[in-house]
Amino acid sequence: MTTTRSGLSLEDARAHLATQPFSTLIGARLTQFDAEVATLELDARPELLQQNGFLHGGVLAYAADNAVTYAAGTVLGASVLTGGISIEYLRPARDGILRAKARVVHVGKRRVLCTCDLVIIDADGKIELCAVAHGTVFPT
Amino acid sequence: MTTTRSGLSLEDARAHLATQPFSTLIGARLTQFDAEVATLELDARPELLQQNGFLHGGVLAYAADNAVTYAAGTVLGASVLTGGISIEYLRPARDGILRAKARVVHVGKRRVLCTCDLVIIDADGKIELCAVAHGTVFPT
Amino acid sequence: MTTTRSGLSLEDARAHLATQPFSTLIGARLTQFDAEVATLELDARPELLQQNGFLHGGVLAYAADNAVTYAAGTVLGASVLTGGISIEYLRPARDGILRAKARVVHVGKRRVLCTCDLVIIDADGKIELCAVAHGTVFPT
Amino acid sequence: MTTTRSGLSLEDARAHLATQPFSTLIGARLTQFDAEVATLELDARPELLQQNGFLHGGVLAYAADNAVTYAAGTVLGASVLTGGISIEYLRPARDGILRAKARVVHVGKRRVLCTCDLVIIDADGKIELCAVAHGTVFPT
Repeated sequence: MTTTRSGLSLEDARAHLATQPFSTLIGARLTQFDAEVATLELDARPELLQQNGFLHGGVLAYAADNAVTYAAGTVLGASVLTGGISIEYLRPARDGILRAKARVVHVGKRRVLCTCDLVIIDADGKIELCAVAHGTVFPT
Repeated sequence: MTTTRSGLSLEDARAHLATQPFSTLIGARLTQFDAEVATLELDARPELLQQNGFLHGGVLAYAADNAVTYAAGTVLGASVLTGGISIEYLRPARDGILRAKARVVHVGKRRVLCTCDLVIIDADGKIELCAVAHGTVFPT
Repeated sequence: MTTTRSGLSLEDARAHLATQPFSTLIGARLTQFDAEVATLELDARPELLQQNGFLHGGVLAYAADNAVTYAAGTVLGASVLTGGISIEYLRPARDGILRAKARVVHVGKRRVLCTCDLVIIDADGKIELCAVAHGTVFPT
Repeated sequence: MTTTRSGLSLEDARAHLATQPFSTLIGARLTQFDAEVATLELDARPELLQQNGFLHGGVLAYAADNAVTYAAGTVLGASVLTGGISIEYLRPARDGILRAKARVVHVGKRRVLCTCDLVIIDADGKIELCAVAHGTVFPT
């Protein structure tokens, strides 16, 4: 079984995600928890949309926030504090699966920085970038 | 009835919010929609928490995103596109009501910039700043 | 003589600024170093412009970076490390004095957050907001 | 001679940079102006340092701002307006050459988004990442 620098495995991270009621409400799942990379996915269910039938920006922000936090967790372990995120919305995301893939770009003494690409994958498997994000995570 | 520069009233904005399924899932309500200011509130219900019993960062990011968008809507009207937000988490927000108050700081030719303070109000009415955010909104 | 929470005075901060060769090259001066607020000014000299006769964005970014750092210094003292800044350019700044006024918005265990308004003051004393910025400063 | 999507060549971009007095003051040079990528370099001269002998954060912010603007210029041409940048300082940059390499990550109807890696190259050719940045550029 693969474990990360933090000693945590994908199974550990999934068990952790299951303790977040909001992630359960959203329907998020972790599909990758590797060295410095975490991927979180969710289905674009009707409850997650805004007024025009697109995924709400808040859903994308949630996905970026959590993917960034888990990516940092591959280095720092389970005890982290997310300091902040920024997200740029590039294209409306309508149908299919939202995939947020976050990657560690810097491990400093005080903080870990991550970037995150958010793509929407439609029924035909077509992948389109819909947002990019960045986040800062502190060890605790 | 008060209307904003965009001609929209608080009632108009509430009707608009009601058309966002994700805002209904979250349980958000608009309590202010004035000249250049919008305030959005939500109860810190159990479904919105993370693993330690605090509001999930994604909930705060949702609230910032939507408050910023409605604040810009007081100027630009209903037809806007949120370009991005950044949020800094300052303190864990546990119980009570989350209030995100966004304010327009710049109306340019290309975009409107807003800031947003997020506070948590506990059962005794004590108010504590838990996050600050900024966002960019485009007219469409 | 007024001193700040950090025990430093405006004179101390000016002496510190004088040890920054780049600030000397730019021609920056500190005009305020109070409780949680620092103001830095510079003249829009020809060497600081870009191709259209406006202050170069890099000059505004410098001013925001340094004003934010000194504002944090009113709380943290001289030994700080600026983690990052973000700046939004709102209007071209042509003539006169650039004033960057930074203010502490959060003092946390790990970091201090500041905002900064940048205005240009023309020969007639007219003041116009030309950029807004935010920054994170760490104690060392 | 290579030209970019905007029709501009490296020589065009260098001629443009030469019209920025502040870039001349800093001593910046363009070393790359390709499809969606621009690289700007400068020597860590004594005048560009802060109090501890490191490059001033404002110099890094300048380099990020300008590299991002030129990267966007490979797509949009010479007539652009930089909306804002954010920069995270990762490590102090002391000696040698600062290289800011910016890359377009999104070309939208309203804006171009770029990222920028800043590295310091010492006398032995050792390269170290010292900052990461992002920026938004508007067509005019």
